[in-house]
Amino acid sequence: MSNIKAALAENAREVDSVLEQLLPPRRDAESRLMDAVRYSTLSGGKRIRPFLVTASSALFGVSKPFALRVAAAIEMVHCYSLIHDDLPAMDNDDLRRGLPTCHVKFDEATAILAGDALLARAFEVIGDPATHTDPRVRSDLVVELARAAGADGMVGGQMLDLLAAEAPLQIAEITRMQRMKTGALIAFSCEAGALLGKASDSARHALRAYAHDLGLAFQIVDDLLDVEGSDEEVGKRTHKDQSAGKATFVSVLGIERARAQSDMLARQAVQHLEMFPDTAEPLRALASFVVHRRH
Amino acid sequence: MSNIKAALAENAREVDSVLEQLLPPRRDAESRLMDAVRYSTLSGGKRIRPFLVTASSALFGVSKPFALRVAAAIEMVHCYSLIHDDLPAMDNDDLRRGLPTCHVKFDEATAILAGDALLARAFEVIGDPATHTDPRVRSDLVVELARAAGADGMVGGQMLDLLAAEAPLQIAEITRMQRMKTGALIAFSCEAGALLGKASDSARHALRAYAHDLGLAFQIVDDLLDVEGSDEEVGKRTHKDQSAGKATFVSVLGIERARAQSDMLARQAVQHLEMFPDTAEPLRALASFVVHRRH
Repeated sequence: MSNIKAALAENAREVDSVLEQLLPPRRDAESRLMDAVRYSTLSGGKRIRPFLVTASSALFGVSKPFALRVAAAIEMVHCYSLIHDDLPAMDNDDLRRGLPTCHVKFDEATAILAGDALLARAFEVIGDPATHTDPRVRSDLVVELARAAGADGMVGGQMLDLLAAEAPLQIAEITRMQRMKTGALIAFSCEAGALLGKASDSARHALRAYAHDLGLAFQIVDDLLDVEGSDEEVGKRTHKDQSAGKATFVSVLGIERARAQSDMLARQAVQHLEMFPDTAEPLRALASFVVHRRH
Repeated sequence: MSNIKAALAENAREVDSVLEQLLPPRRDAESRLMDAVRYSTLSGGKRIRPFLVTASSALFGVSKPFALRVAAAIEMVHCYSLIHDDLPAMDNDDLRRGLPTCHVKFDEATAILAGDALLARAFEVIGDPATHTDPRVRSDLVVELARAAGADGMVGGQMLDLLAAEAPLQIAEITRMQRMKTGALIAFSCEAGALLGKASDSARHALRAYAHDLGLAFQIVDDLLDVEGSDEEVGKRTHKDQSAGKATFVSVLGIERARAQSDMLARQAVQHLEMFPDTAEPLRALASFVVHRRH
């Protein structure tokens, strides 16, 4: 557990340093935009997705600078989605990673634009020759990232989540919604290593399967933390799902079964990694970390 | 004038048919999202940017299906920017292309997500092998589109425009703002043909120069229509800049000089096309159309 925490922290430092280079501060008339982008992107976070990119890339001997650029781009997409999801018209959240959300710190218009700028910048980074020497790899990464981020992935999942306020979801619908909303980008994070390393289809599918189970386990624990955690511990507003009357894994399954389900998914995730040697140890350790985390 | 109108209408039909294929209606739980996307993308519009893509592509013998996919992707980015710019937190517009804006017809959350989905979809389309056989061309298009859309282009320009409400801009600042806000995507629309056709650097630069002048001329006419047009004619709320006390080309230059400036820019735009033969006739005609349009 302490090893994986140290590995996550070390990876976060490396990714943050790349993000810092890719999102430099500006001194122009529109500097407020990059201030907001940097505020929401360089303010900590566990950097789970970037960790998945570098850990999956390591399986195939991908050059570290390539992996870190893709990791940074995926984190940009994740941060853009948090900024937009936090907006008053969406989840109306005022606390994120222990700090005021982007629209509270700046204003709504700036927050919308900061999210938009991050999404565009992510594709600019992925498409750049510095991300991989083979342009086919770059355009494949662009297409898969766009799919994970778009109407069939993250954006569609958020739409489902908002619609769920009107009619609480059943467990199969919650699973589908979460697979789109958070699962798709987590799956792409693992798949990115396989794409960068031109891995076999079987390796790519194994990583997708691992990521799908990991993503669901991660989300169930998120729901558990919303019920069991405090704002201070978790770094964002808790007890929100309950007070909104929202159906979650925990409200439908109960705490005990939700906990058992997340443990089972984490074990199942690790089983998908059987084809990989010791080099997949960080991915195995992450599965255990995800279900035992406290924030 | 009637020729260019017919050519624009024909091109709009072709682009709309590609957009219809790329953004099919959905019958799933989240169908509201694609309903909003389609409402805001398939509701008419002059399709000036798509026309620039196909007209510039024609100079280099680019396959029409390739050009139309890029044209459709650029129109998606344009429509996303309109949806977000119309939001209450931004320009708070309720009328667009003669119809209620996306957040009025649906709601704010859906409008934000529809814009996000369109932006992601545009990159998915550009990165797809169906857009060009050469992956280097596709990744170059991704990078240039991302630049045009991002903090150094459209999003940065919108930030400047919002900040201008606090301190009215001088003419040089208005020019810079508009070059970013609308000019960057217009320039990319012309550049796309050169990228798709692997044209020489000099041809690419000539098209950029044409597009820069055309874009400014287009914007000045937009400002003129805001002062001189009616809501019904223009299809969006007019007299907004004046009542918001916003500095525009017209408020700074006056109607006469603004009109003269747009005419001069349109002539200058055409001069940049000297290296191209008769095949550039549609681009020349468009420059004249842009400054004489009534909506």
